Amino acid sequence: MTATAQTAVVGVTGYAGAELARLLLRHPRLKSTLPVFAGRLDEKDAARGGIPLAEIHPELANNNGTGKLKLQPFSWELLTERGVEVLFLATPHEQSRAWVPEALRRGIRVIDLSGAWRLREPANRAIYGFEDEGTDRAKSTQDQAVYGMPELHREQIAAAKLVANPGCYATSIILALKPLVEAGLVDLDRGIVCDAKSGVSGAGKAPTAKTHFMHAADNLSAYAVFAHRHTGELLEQIGVKADEIVFTPHLLPIPRGILSTIYVRFHEPQTRERILEKYRQFFGRSAMVRIYDRVLPQIHYSLHTGYADIGFELSPDGRRAVIVSCLDNLLKGASSQAVQNLNLMQGWGEAEGLE
Amino acid sequence: MTATAQTAVVGVTGYAGAELARLLLRHPRLKSTLPVFAGRLDEKDAARGGIPLAEIHPELANNNGTGKLKLQPFSWELLTERGVEVLFLATPHEQSRAWVPEALRRGIRVIDLSGAWRLREPANRAIYGFEDEGTDRAKSTQDQAVYGMPELHREQIAAAKLVANPGCYATSIILALKPLVEAGLVDLDRGIVCDAKSGVSGAGKAPTAKTHFMHAADNLSAYAVFAHRHTGELLEQIGVKADEIVFTPHLLPIPRGILSTIYVRFHEPQTRERILEKYRQFFGRSAMVRIYDRVLPQIHYSLHTGYADIGFELSPDGRRAVIVSCLDNLLKGASSQAVQNLNLMQGWGEAEGLE
Amino acid sequence: MTATAQTAVVGVTGYAGAELARLLLRHPRLKSTLPVFAGRLDEKDAARGGIPLAEIHPELANNNGTGKLKLQPFSWELLTERGVEVLFLATPHEQSRAWVPEALRRGIRVIDLSGAWRLREPANRAIYGFEDEGTDRAKSTQDQAVYGMPELHREQIAAAKLVANPGCYATSIILALKPLVEAGLVDLDRGIVCDAKSGVSGAGKAPTAKTHFMHAADNLSAYAVFAHRHTGELLEQIGVKADEIVFTPHLLPIPRGILSTIYVRFHEPQTRERILEKYRQFFGRSAMVRIYDRVLPQIHYSLHTGYADIGFELSPDGRRAVIVSCLDNLLKGASSQAVQNLNLMQGWGEAEGLE
Amino acid sequence: MTATAQTAVVGVTGYAGAELARLLLRHPRLKSTLPVFAGRLDEKDAARGGIPLAEIHPELANNNGTGKLKLQPFSWELLTERGVEVLFLATPHEQSRAWVPEALRRGIRVIDLSGAWRLREPANRAIYGFEDEGTDRAKSTQDQAVYGMPELHREQIAAAKLVANPGCYATSIILALKPLVEAGLVDLDRGIVCDAKSGVSGAGKAPTAKTHFMHAADNLSAYAVFAHRHTGELLEQIGVKADEIVFTPHLLPIPRGILSTIYVRFHEPQTRERILEKYRQFFGRSAMVRIYDRVLPQIHYSLHTGYADIGFELSPDGRRAVIVSCLDNLLKGASSQAVQNLNLMQGWGEAEGLE
Repeated sequence: MTATAQTAVVGVTGYAGAELARLLLRHPRLKSTLPVFAGRLDEKDAARGGIPLAEIHPELANNNGTGKLKLQPFSWELLTERGVEVLFLATPHEQSRAWVPEALRRGIRVIDLSGAWRLREPANRAIYGFEDEGTDRAKSTQDQAVYGMPELHREQIAAAKLVANPGCYATSIILALKPLVEAGLVDLDRGIVCDAKSGVSGAGKAPTAKTHFMHAADNLSAYAVFAHRHTGELLEQIGVKADEIVFTPHLLPIPRGILSTIYVRFHEPQTRERILEKYRQFFGRSAMVRIYDRVLPQIHYSLHTGYADIGFELSPDGRRAVIVSCLDNLLKGASSQAVQNLNLMQGWGEAEGLE
Repeated sequence: MTATAQTAVVGVTGYAGAELARLLLRHPRLKSTLPVFAGRLDEKDAARGGIPLAEIHPELANNNGTGKLKLQPFSWELLTERGVEVLFLATPHEQSRAWVPEALRRGIRVIDLSGAWRLREPANRAIYGFEDEGTDRAKSTQDQAVYGMPELHREQIAAAKLVANPGCYATSIILALKPLVEAGLVDLDRGIVCDAKSGVSGAGKAPTAKTHFMHAADNLSAYAVFAHRHTGELLEQIGVKADEIVFTPHLLPIPRGILSTIYVRFHEPQTRERILEKYRQFFGRSAMVRIYDRVLPQIHYSLHTGYADIGFELSPDGRRAVIVSCLDNLLKGASSQAVQNLNLMQGWGEAEGLE
Repeated sequence: MTATAQTAVVGVTGYAGAELARLLLRHPRLKSTLPVFAGRLDEKDAARGGIPLAEIHPELANNNGTGKLKLQPFSWELLTERGVEVLFLATPHEQSRAWVPEALRRGIRVIDLSGAWRLREPANRAIYGFEDEGTDRAKSTQDQAVYGMPELHREQIAAAKLVANPGCYATSIILALKPLVEAGLVDLDRGIVCDAKSGVSGAGKAPTAKTHFMHAADNLSAYAVFAHRHTGELLEQIGVKADEIVFTPHLLPIPRGILSTIYVRFHEPQTRERILEKYRQFFGRSAMVRIYDRVLPQIHYSLHTGYADIGFELSPDGRRAVIVSCLDNLLKGASSQAVQNLNLMQGWGEAEGLE
Repeated sequence: MTATAQTAVVGVTGYAGAELARLLLRHPRLKSTLPVFAGRLDEKDAARGGIPLAEIHPELANNNGTGKLKLQPFSWELLTERGVEVLFLATPHEQSRAWVPEALRRGIRVIDLSGAWRLREPANRAIYGFEDEGTDRAKSTQDQAVYGMPELHREQIAAAKLVANPGCYATSIILALKPLVEAGLVDLDRGIVCDAKSGVSGAGKAPTAKTHFMHAADNLSAYAVFAHRHTGELLEQIGVKADEIVFTPHLLPIPRGILSTIYVRFHEPQTRERILEKYRQFFGRSAMVRIYDRVLPQIHYSLHTGYADIGFELSPDGRRAVIVSCLDNLLKGASSQAVQNLNLMQGWGEAEGLE
C-alpha cells in the first residue's frame, strides 16, 4: 500500500472525464492530478501555462483550488517528468488502442474508460472494428487487461497493469444478473430480457441530431436493437450465450442516470428472502452496491452518487422476477468505478473518495 | 348512418376529457357537444349559465367558438332535454359503474373511458374491487359491453350500446402483439415481455407525491410490477395466459406519450417481409395504425396525433423480435380512440375528425 | 379575392418550415403545396420522384395524404411549371437575400420568414452584415417589403409583393407594447425592460453546443445581451429609441414557446380597465390575439396554437405595469403568422386554417 | 472558537432540510447532527428507535453511515439531553414564530430558514400575517434577529443568538445589487427591474396544482407580480424604496436553480473594469461568491454548489447594465448559506464543509 499516487487524466473535456477530474481533485489520497489533453496549446494558452480547467468546466471552478488547475498538452515526457504512476484515459476507443501499449511499456498503469480493452473474445470485439485487431501488440496488451468491475474481479484489479473500466449499461446489467446466474437460479433457456434506459450524457458531448434538445426532450427512443457494443460485456462477464439474452438501450429525456429493467425466469420458484440472501452474499464486501428490499430503486436515488442500486419483484408464483438496477452513468457507470479501481490498485479502501 | 349526433362528455376537467372535448368540438359531424360535470354550480356560476370551459382550459379558448362553451352540472333531465344520444364518460371507475346502467336504461349509448367495463373475466376484474361486483345489474351491463378497440372489434362496436374504451398501455401492447399471436408465430411458452413507459399525464390530474415535478422530472421509476390493472386487458384481448406474459409500466419524465418495448420469440425463424406482411394484413382497414419499416417509431412521432405506431427489429437469426409500439396516451390511448368508436357507432368514417 | 392559390415552401426541413408545411397542407383554401429544397436529388431519390416528406418528418406522415408528398429540388422552372403564386421562404438570411429579388422579378409574391428584409434602417440592419447591403437591387427590394405583422399593417400586407415575416421575440414584444406606447401612456424616458425567454426550437435545427440536450436541459442562460438581432424590429415597429428599451433573450429548457415579461412606467397612474380598453381597442379586428383579464398568460396556453396571449398586472399605485406576453415561437412567432399574411394577401379571412 | 458543536435540524423531510442534513452530516467539524421532526412516532417506528432517514431520502442512504440515522420526534427535553447548541429550523413560518422564542429562552442559538424573522419593518412583514405580530415576545425576538447573509453582516452573525436565513430569490438579487447601490452608482430614480426565475423545488414539497409535473413541465409562468414576500428583504437589505424596484418571480421547468436578470441604469457611464472592481472589493472576503468576467453565469454552473455567481453586461454607452445572478436555491439560497452562518457563529472558516 502506498500513501499517495501521482495520476493523470486524459479527456476531461468530456462528461465522464469531467466527473473523474472532480472526484480525483477531492480524493483524500491524491495531492494533485494532472489533466492533459490530446491537442496542442495555442500561443495565448501557452503564455498562461495551459488552459484553465475552470474555463472548460465553470462548475468545477472555485475560489481557492481547482479553478486554478490548467490543462496541459499530452506528451510522454510530461508524464515522466511529473512521475505519473496511474494514467486515466477517458478517450475515444481508437486513442486508447494506440496509447495503452506505450504506457504499459513505460511502466505506467492504466485505467481505460473506453471500450478498447474490455472484451476477450475476438467475435465480441468485431463490432468495434479496431484497426490493430490481430496484431501482436494488441494481443499482448489485451492479455494484460482486467475487466474493471471491482465486485467481480477485486483481486485481479489490485494487481493489474491495465484495467478496462466497464461500460455503463453493462455495469447496471451485470451487477444485477451475475449473483443469480452464478448461483444457477436462472433458466437461461427461457431467455433473459434487459430493457435499459439511459440519460443523454451517455451519448457523448458531440452535438448531433440525436443529442439535440429537440430530439431528446419529451421523447423516448430505442436504438441499436440487437446491436449494442455493450452486449459482448454481458456475454463474457455474466457467462451467457448470445441466444440467451437480449439487451435494448433507450435514450431517456434526462441528463444522466440509467435504469435497467431485467426479466428472468427461475428453474424453481424462489422466495424474496432467498433472492435477497443471494445478492447480499455476493455483495458482502462491496461498499458501492445497495440492495433494496420491498422498494424498487429509481434513477433519482443513485444520481450524483457512486452506488449501483438493485431491487426486484417476484411474480406471485415465485417463478419469475423483474429486477430493477439503477446507477449514475457518469459515476458508477464510468468515473467512480474508475476510482474504485484506482483504490484497489493502490491498496486503499475501495470506497475512498466516493462517499 | 346518421348525419350528425348529439353528444355529451363528463370529465373534461381531466387530461383525457379535455382532449376529448377538443376533438369533439372540432369534429365535422358534430354541431355541438355538451360538457357536463358531476358537481353543482355555485351561485356565481349559475348566474352566468355555467362554468366557461376556457377558465378550466385556457388552451381551449379561442376568440369565436369553444371559449364560450359552458360546463353544466350533470343530470339525466339535462341529457334528455338536449337529446343526447351518445354519452362519453371520462370519469373515475366507480362513477362509470354507477352511471352506465342508468344511461343504457334510458337508451343513451355510452363510450366509457374508465376501466369499469373492460374486463369479461371476474378474476381479471378483481384488482378493481368494484363494489357492485356480482350484482345482476353489473352482470347484465357487462354483457352488453364491447371492448372498444376498432382494429379488433370493428363490427361489434358499430352495434354496441356500451363501448369500454381500452386502457392506454393495453392499446399500445395489444395492437403490437395481436397480429403475431393470432397468426400463431409467437412461442408463448418462452414468454412475452412488455416493458412499457408512459408520460405523467397517465397518472392523472390529482396532485400527488408521484406527479410532483420534483419526483417525476429527471427520473425514471418502475411501478405496479406484476400488478398493473391493464394486465387483464392483455390476457383477454391477446388471448394469452398470465404465465405467458409480463408487463411492467414505468413513469417517464415527459408530459405525454407511451412507448412499449415488447420481446417475443418465434416458433420458427421469421423474415422482415413476413412480419411486415402479417401486420399490414391485420391492419389493412385500420386508418389509425402506422406500420414502420426499417425505422423504429419514437414517442415524438405519435404525439398530438391519433395514430398507434408499430415497428420492430428481428434478431440476426430471425428467432426473436423486439417490437416498439408508440402512441399518445391521451389520444389513441384514450380520447381519439373514443372518437373512432363514436364514428363506428354512427356509421361514419373511422378516422373522421382525427386527421 | 381568389378561391385558391398555388404555394410553394422552401425550408421544410427546419422547425418553422415543418410547421408551415403542416399548416398549409391542411389549409382549407389550398389544394396542394409544393415543398422544395435548395439541394439536389441523389439517384435513389430522383428515381422515386423526390424525397418523401414523411421520411424527414415522420410526425407529418399519415395513411392517406401528406405522407405521400415529395420534396423537389428548387428551380425557377419548377415554380413556373406548377404555377406558384406565393412562395414561402423558411431559409437562412443570405438565401432569402439572394432569391427574393428574382422571385419578385418573376411576379411571384414572397412571404419570407428570415430576417433578410424586416428592417428599414441601415443602422438596424448592420448586425446582419448582408453581403449585398447598399446595392440597388437590395434597396429596391427592401422598398417593396412590408413588415408582416397583421395586427399593425393589415392593409399594406394585403397589397404587398414581399412580406417580411416578423421575428419570434419581436412579435411577442411588439404586440404587447405597441397599443400602450402608441396611446402615449408609457414614460419612455424611464425606460422599457423586455425580459424574454424562448424554447430551444428558436435556436434552430443545427446541432450545436448550445442546442445539445446537456446544455439546454435543467438550465437557463441569458445571451446576446444588448446585442440581439430582433432589437431593430422593436425600435422600428414600436417607435422607440435604442436608449429607451432593453431586450434580453434567455434560452429556456423547453422545446417551444416564448414568454416575455415587459416592464413599463406610465406618465400617469392607470387603472386595469383603462389598460384593458386600450388593448381591446387596438386588437378589435385581430382574431389571433387574446387579451387576458385577471389571470396572466403562461407558455402552456398558447402552445400549438396561433395565438399571441397578452396579460398584465399593475403596481398598487397604477404607475407601473408588468406585461406578460406569450406565444408559440414556431406558430405565431413564425409559421401561423405567415399563414395570416397569406390569408390577407389573398383576401381570405385572416384566421383561416388556424383555428 | 470551539472545535465542534452539537446541532439539531427540524424539517429534513423538505427539500432544503434534506440538503441541510446532507451538508451537516458531512461537515468536518460536526460529529453528529440530530434530525428531529414535529410529529409523533407510531408504534412501529418507536419500536425501532425512530424513522430511518434513508426511508425518507433514499438518496441520503449509504452503506456505513447516514443511512442509519433516525428521525426523532421533537421535544425540548430531547434537545437538552443531547446538548444541542445550535438549532436549525427548516419549518413553516408559523412554526418558527412559535419555537424560536422558547429556544432563545433556553439558551439555544437558532438558524431559522423560514421567513419568520427576516424583516425589521412591520409594513414589510404584513404580507406574512403573523398571528403573534405586535406581541412583546415577537418584538423582543425580532430585535435579536440578524439577517443571515454573511457577505453583508459577517460580524453581527458571529455574535447572533438568532440568525434569519435569507430567502432564495432575495439572496440572488441582494448580492448582485448591494455592491453597486451602496457605491452610489445606480440611478434609483430610473428604477431597478429584477426578473427572477426559479426551479420547482422553490415551491415546496407539497403536491399542488402548481407543482404538478403537467403544469410545471414545458411551461413558464410569472406569479406573485408586485406581491412576492421576498420584496421586503430587497427593500431592507439593499436600501431602496418600494417605488424604486420591481421584482417578478417565474416558475422554471427545472428541479432547482435560480437565475435573476437585473436591469439598472447608472448616474454616470461605467466601464467593465470599474464594475468588476466594485464587486471584487465588496466580496473580497467572501469565499462563496464568484464574480464572472466576460462570460455570464448560467444556472448549470452553480447547481449542487454553495456559490452565488454574478456576471454582467454593459450597454455600449456604459449607462446601463444587465446583471445576471445565479445560485442553487436549495444551497446558497437556503441550506449552504445556513452552514456559512453556523461557521461564523462558531468562529470556523466561513466555507468549511461547503467545498
